[in-house]
Amino acid sequence: MTIVNSVGLPTVASVVSAPDLTVRTLGTARINSPLSGMLDAWKTTEHYVSEHDRVLLDDTLSTAVSRGLPVAELPGLEPCGPRRKIFFDPSKTRAGIVTCGGLCPGLNDVIRGLVRSLTHQYGVRRVTGFRNGYQGFVASYAHDIVELTPNRVADITVEGGTVLGTSRGHQDPEDIVDCLERLNINVLFVIGGDGTMRGAMRIVAAAAARELRISVVGIPKTIDNDIPYIDQSFGFQTAFAQAAESIRAVNTEAKSTPHGIGLVKLMGRHSGFIAAYAALANHDADVVLIPEVPFELDGPDGLLAYVHRRMHERGHTVVVVAEGAGQDLLADGQAGSTDPSGNTRLRDIGPYLGTRIDEYLRAAGMVPSIRYIDPSYAIRSVPANAYDKAYCLRLAYNAVHAAMAGRTAMVVGRLRRRFVHIPMALVVSRRNQVDPHGDLWMSVLEATGQPMRMG
Amino acid sequence: MTIVNSVGLPTVASVVSAPDLTVRTLGTARINSPLSGMLDAWKTTEHYVSEHDRVLLDDTLSTAVSRGLPVAELPGLEPCGPRRKIFFDPSKTRAGIVTCGGLCPGLNDVIRGLVRSLTHQYGVRRVTGFRNGYQGFVASYAHDIVELTPNRVADITVEGGTVLGTSRGHQDPEDIVDCLERLNINVLFVIGGDGTMRGAMRIVAAAAARELRISVVGIPKTIDNDIPYIDQSFGFQTAFAQAAESIRAVNTEAKSTPHGIGLVKLMGRHSGFIAAYAALANHDADVVLIPEVPFELDGPDGLLAYVHRRMHERGHTVVVVAEGAGQDLLADGQAGSTDPSGNTRLRDIGPYLGTRIDEYLRAAGMVPSIRYIDPSYAIRSVPANAYDKAYCLRLAYNAVHAAMAGRTAMVVGRLRRRFVHIPMALVVSRRNQVDPHGDLWMSVLEATGQPMRMG
Amino acid sequence: MTIVNSVGLPTVASVVSAPDLTVRTLGTARINSPLSGMLDAWKTTEHYVSEHDRVLLDDTLSTAVSRGLPVAELPGLEPCGPRRKIFFDPSKTRAGIVTCGGLCPGLNDVIRGLVRSLTHQYGVRRVTGFRNGYQGFVASYAHDIVELTPNRVADITVEGGTVLGTSRGHQDPEDIVDCLERLNINVLFVIGGDGTMRGAMRIVAAAAARELRISVVGIPKTIDNDIPYIDQSFGFQTAFAQAAESIRAVNTEAKSTPHGIGLVKLMGRHSGFIAAYAALANHDADVVLIPEVPFELDGPDGLLAYVHRRMHERGHTVVVVAEGAGQDLLADGQAGSTDPSGNTRLRDIGPYLGTRIDEYLRAAGMVPSIRYIDPSYAIRSVPANAYDKAYCLRLAYNAVHAAMAGRTAMVVGRLRRRFVHIPMALVVSRRNQVDPHGDLWMSVLEATGQPMRMG
Amino acid sequence: MTIVNSVGLPTVASVVSAPDLTVRTLGTARINSPLSGMLDAWKTTEHYVSEHDRVLLDDTLSTAVSRGLPVAELPGLEPCGPRRKIFFDPSKTRAGIVTCGGLCPGLNDVIRGLVRSLTHQYGVRRVTGFRNGYQGFVASYAHDIVELTPNRVADITVEGGTVLGTSRGHQDPEDIVDCLERLNINVLFVIGGDGTMRGAMRIVAAAAARELRISVVGIPKTIDNDIPYIDQSFGFQTAFAQAAESIRAVNTEAKSTPHGIGLVKLMGRHSGFIAAYAALANHDADVVLIPEVPFELDGPDGLLAYVHRRMHERGHTVVVVAEGAGQDLLADGQAGSTDPSGNTRLRDIGPYLGTRIDEYLRAAGMVPSIRYIDPSYAIRSVPANAYDKAYCLRLAYNAVHAAMAGRTAMVVGRLRRRFVHIPMALVVSRRNQVDPHGDLWMSVLEATGQPMRMG
Repeated sequence: MTIVNSVGLPTVASVVSAPDLTVRTLGTARINSPLSGMLDAWKTTEHYVSEHDRVLLDDTLSTAVSRGLPVAELPGLEPCGPRRKIFFDPSKTRAGIVTCGGLCPGLNDVIRGLVRSLTHQYGVRRVTGFRNGYQGFVASYAHDIVELTPNRVADITVEGGTVLGTSRGHQDPEDIVDCLERLNINVLFVIGGDGTMRGAMRIVAAAAARELRISVVGIPKTIDNDIPYIDQSFGFQTAFAQAAESIRAVNTEAKSTPHGIGLVKLMGRHSGFIAAYAALANHDADVVLIPEVPFELDGPDGLLAYVHRRMHERGHTVVVVAEGAGQDLLADGQAGSTDPSGNTRLRDIGPYLGTRIDEYLRAAGMVPSIRYIDPSYAIRSVPANAYDKAYCLRLAYNAVHAAMAGRTAMVVGRLRRRFVHIPMALVVSRRNQVDPHGDLWMSVLEATGQPMRMG
Repeated sequence: MTIVNSVGLPTVASVVSAPDLTVRTLGTARINSPLSGMLDAWKTTEHYVSEHDRVLLDDTLSTAVSRGLPVAELPGLEPCGPRRKIFFDPSKTRAGIVTCGGLCPGLNDVIRGLVRSLTHQYGVRRVTGFRNGYQGFVASYAHDIVELTPNRVADITVEGGTVLGTSRGHQDPEDIVDCLERLNINVLFVIGGDGTMRGAMRIVAAAAARELRISVVGIPKTIDNDIPYIDQSFGFQTAFAQAAESIRAVNTEAKSTPHGIGLVKLMGRHSGFIAAYAALANHDADVVLIPEVPFELDGPDGLLAYVHRRMHERGHTVVVVAEGAGQDLLADGQAGSTDPSGNTRLRDIGPYLGTRIDEYLRAAGMVPSIRYIDPSYAIRSVPANAYDKAYCLRLAYNAVHAAMAGRTAMVVGRLRRRFVHIPMALVVSRRNQVDPHGDLWMSVLEATGQPMRMG
Repeated sequence: MTIVNSVGLPTVASVVSAPDLTVRTLGTARINSPLSGMLDAWKTTEHYVSEHDRVLLDDTLSTAVSRGLPVAELPGLEPCGPRRKIFFDPSKTRAGIVTCGGLCPGLNDVIRGLVRSLTHQYGVRRVTGFRNGYQGFVASYAHDIVELTPNRVADITVEGGTVLGTSRGHQDPEDIVDCLERLNINVLFVIGGDGTMRGAMRIVAAAAARELRISVVGIPKTIDNDIPYIDQSFGFQTAFAQAAESIRAVNTEAKSTPHGIGLVKLMGRHSGFIAAYAALANHDADVVLIPEVPFELDGPDGLLAYVHRRMHERGHTVVVVAEGAGQDLLADGQAGSTDPSGNTRLRDIGPYLGTRIDEYLRAAGMVPSIRYIDPSYAIRSVPANAYDKAYCLRLAYNAVHAAMAGRTAMVVGRLRRRFVHIPMALVVSRRNQVDPHGDLWMSVLEATGQPMRMG
Repeated sequence: MTIVNSVGLPTVASVVSAPDLTVRTLGTARINSPLSGMLDAWKTTEHYVSEHDRVLLDDTLSTAVSRGLPVAELPGLEPCGPRRKIFFDPSKTRAGIVTCGGLCPGLNDVIRGLVRSLTHQYGVRRVTGFRNGYQGFVASYAHDIVELTPNRVADITVEGGTVLGTSRGHQDPEDIVDCLERLNINVLFVIGGDGTMRGAMRIVAAAAARELRISVVGIPKTIDNDIPYIDQSFGFQTAFAQAAESIRAVNTEAKSTPHGIGLVKLMGRHSGFIAAYAALANHDADVVLIPEVPFELDGPDGLLAYVHRRMHERGHTVVVVAEGAGQDLLADGQAGSTDPSGNTRLRDIGPYLGTRIDEYLRAAGMVPSIRYIDPSYAIRSVPANAYDKAYCLRLAYNAVHAAMAGRTAMVVGRLRRRFVHIPMALVVSRRNQVDPHGDLWMSVLEATGQPMRMG
């Protein structure tokens, strides 16, 4: 089957070179699932999951037609769900769980869901938690491992963060596979972002080179919602609700002060989803700046002149900026610097904007009071809200189903409301970004009243 | 174009007789939209909204293939969004807004979004709010009307409920059209459930009979999430988050008491979505009972025996029941009774379950302490959470775009993450329900550990 | 020292017969406290706690003068705090903790504070939790006991309720002392209301009869805030904040409905504090009804006529009623009935008021929509808020200091901002009630606009 | 009457020189209060407010005895409350309201309470809000004034901040009195901190010099809770509850990271109440640093060594520092600098501590991950919680009663649970601080386990 992909890509050309959508499998699934009794009782409906069905990637007629594809070749992804036949014998399975990268609401909910599903649904007897990200596999860090039982994880979801700890950065995949082999782990759940998934692909490769049958299944985590092919990453709704609180705070400050300016820097290295949704949830922002939409500070149509106009119209102004926005405007001093995860260090747009706005307004004869908030830790450390709790649970269940069925080198995600298996290679192939010509960004422009182009 | 539909329907047969998907239009759109400047600057991408594009209803390959349809005939709905050409001249347009039926988080957010979009984006100068549902159009009720301006609605979203008031029940469509004609309303936004949308269709018919060009656009409201063809109704996430709090409360009570039983009756006349999602968000429930899944009380596999077993295993038990569940178990005394909206009055399953469980356990030698909560008003009266606020805003914007483009007899909704126009006839044609064989219900079974069949 | 008391009593006469204020002590404290190093470093200030100091009961000059007492005889209570000499040798001390009666926010915070202070500050090695109230001491109930360590209680405060469980009703004090003797408990912390404290006094008497040196120290719990001599009981602020949410909910419902009436029944058997404070925190109530202030339904100045007037003035009305209010208005069918704690069962004023209001308005030609909430469980099961968490911790620390110093038959409380020891006999001698002529009730009248007398 | 005072002062000596406790009165109150009907019906009880009663300042016997005073001379303050005779004729009264200084939860609640009491209880017909603090009286700033009606302020309490705006700094009292005279304001309510009250005293003096009968009544506002003679300032409980959330956030971050350090800088220029109470409400802090308790960084008993030990014991450490703590440790570069309110600018202890801890641990061979939060704006901009809402309302009512009775140059406050009038001179005479030898700080030491002396 020729599989191509189109969602969210600006041109068809780029689609053609998209990675293969086929999910790799370790081998034939031959063992009866403990769930097969339940599955047999399931009536066959359109929701029934057959091995060969696919969730279509295209969601508009025009894109489907533009391909000129016969129906049978519409691109699609494998749906999630329990299979009648599974690959691993639960009585001989030992599972591992690791959380990597920055905090995100819902990590403990995913851990709890994995442990409960493995134990209660499949009867897996040993679930091992590795501490502090990929460091937890490497002896030289001397982190302990944690045996995870349903009882031990029963109450962990009332807190944010991750009970396993986390860290950034890669470790030698050979070291990791050594550890997995030593502990007889044959199912590994990796919760992390694109860097983490790249690491997971190296683990898959290293295990394959040793002819080890280890399933590596990812649950993609990104507080920026920048993972492609999925509707929304877990924790994202909790995060933007918290972010909206910060907009509320600076708006209150700005309104209560003569010539008040509220300035919030939100997360969003390459993708401005948190800034965009938070601005829709809290209508107080006058302008939202995101990495996907370049802007100028100077000139009659620039940000500074716009802020000045808003001060005259409203008496105060609220500016929301994603951390990755306007990087081109900053001096190049730190170029090339990267963090332990390999991400380019961003220059700090928040204080820079504050300084420039302050200077501009003073030059124009107005002495502003600028209230600046950078709420990053306060956002990512909160427990998941009700929606994200339910979502994390379902992701975890589906990750267990995939792993027990022998899938590997894939992540679970939700594509236009259907849970699907996505090859890791696909989720690291590009970033999900706010489409500057899509309806989300249009809604933001409508809500803030800011011009389409600034500068 | 032959349009058929399949999402969520149990058999293909029922699909064939589904209503026409084509959205009616009052006439040709000839007037330039005030937004056309912005739209011209929009680059043409896959997200671009052309008049003739459609969002596909099918989301799996197997259903597409089973139809044997050529690609060009895949069923689909018209996407939402602003059009380059609109039907109504904003300077001559007067809009009306009415909210009907029970409260739901987000009503004020929708009202605010409509008023702002009509005023700021289209330049409509008069937006009139009708008080207390359809009563507001009928002179004999003597309700005042309210002129709605962006300033007047600026702060209404901090409160739940609806600033316009609401009521249940129908009014004579001729009276309503008399009122619309008298006030020169040519665009009417109706926020309500399926009963309300049936009323709106009668208004459309009455207006058409008089050859009035009045656009009637609905924003579907249902706290039960039982409207079909849309991913989730506005306010639903807020509602189930509140409902999860009630489960938390009775679980705390039950755990703190010898032989404690927590019992929560949640909303859900025909659809158990709130109960199902709340139980996923708060993992304390031992059993969830919904209208879609019949159950027995008696017998070794019945609910009572299951509760008894859980008391022995856990020391306490939490039962979550949707109000429409188990109606067949109740005595038939009130049969035939209906409320002003025409809904059959449900018999009260909550206290009945409480009594039966109490009797059963006492007969088995255990004296339970039953804590029963029916949190209905406390749930539906809260302000919308951040997600629903953003969602309501986008629904409202799209409703305005549709109405100004001359669409009528339709509602705005979100279908698998795309905002679409849905004919009213379609949304009232059936109910959205929890699929007892779908992955949501499977997740609930996994989370509670309750058996697939009870009795 | 002649000790009399006056705070909150309507007449001086009742004061004279008030119980003795002297706290009983098991014997001379001879053992150096583990805290004495810290205490020695403490500079002697006015806050320093000497054995013989007293916190004055009178707080106005006029009451002091009216007694004609010399300064040295002003009535007062012993202040809380650690003593340099303690009575019990920590290495030989085994402490017990029991929670009794209905739930109240903060129970787990008190338990946690007791365990941590006993363990970390005094070095007590065994702290035993008894399950399900006084039942936990009685063998026939077969409840297990729980060894409590700082680690085991580390995370219990994120949840409401009590990890020890609770029950209502008394048990034979001889059985309880048998159990204490068998387990070598010499320090017992009892968390409960006035019934529980009466039970604790019987335990003290039974232990004394056996010449056992067992310290019994209470932490008074009452969600109604009806314990006398203390500023406010723990959990009360959390409770009325929740109660205010219920007023918000019915107000939203009432405002959104033609002829809407919101009706909330709040806790308050004999004391209307929750209703009064909730109405101040949420200004939506039109009338607050409490047990301390009789009212009539009928007549031109009665409640029903008042509600009718408010409907005309405001279009909707919100009525807040404490459960113990208006008991004289209800038919006498259930007279004499008591619950397991010995409290008279109240007749249900909420639905009765709803019915009477509905009938009255209908007779007057208005068809009201009544929204009734009884949020009891939802209020008392929530975790303590920040203020109550800090307060519970300080109460627990002071209870441990008192017990280790050999005090018994007393509770810890806060009297006009100072933590004090109060003899149990004193706290059960009368109830704290809203003074119908005090400034709290005056504020409620000011806030609601309701007349001083209704009927 | 010789009036001296003692509460919270370290030595008796300082008390003797305390300012006069007598509240100034503009003249004899001769006008019957509109409330006198209600007051006459009030039975005379101990809570009845006579003109000459006093709330005693001393609360322990030992301090009373140490004075050797006869009972009649015990120091005391005038109680709040409505008087039968008032000074101002409501029909000729025009009231003004101004809010000054930094934001604090509850400002809008106070404004709302003032407006409602003036209008509904006294029948005052004009209440004028001045914008942006004392600037609002000065023509050159050109701020508008706002007519405040109950309707206009009905919904303002759902938001934080102040609808009147605020500013720091003084204005010429002659300009202010010019404005008051021009607008015929005879009752002025000033909401602000000690600097604001000093300004108010200058207004009183300037008005007196012109023989204007203008009552100036303050409602003391301080998020640091540093105003003396009152139990707790409004908004304080809301503030420390928010601050506890920041401790939770950094604790979650620190626990989830190898060698994680959480560092929170809280408000508290001279008084560490927020830090102390937040640490009691959230038990995650390992050390709390406040201005009242000096500490050293270096040496075996210094903070750095303590943090190092905690890292070994717990794996992570949480440090809470009040902004005014440890100022002596910082380099002296900015000495002498002051802000517009005349407050000395503090050097930034937060980042400094972070750097020093980082260096110390790295030198000791441990690479920490430091998560630093400075949540100032996020704390002070939130709406008041239920307790503070009720408290603000009662303060506002009592401020109106005082002003209408002709009191001036005073503030309303709550002293050991009784609302009292306090001369402005008294509230600016010193600061309320955490007593390093009192039971609050002892509770913090108990809760954190930190040593009494650090360094």
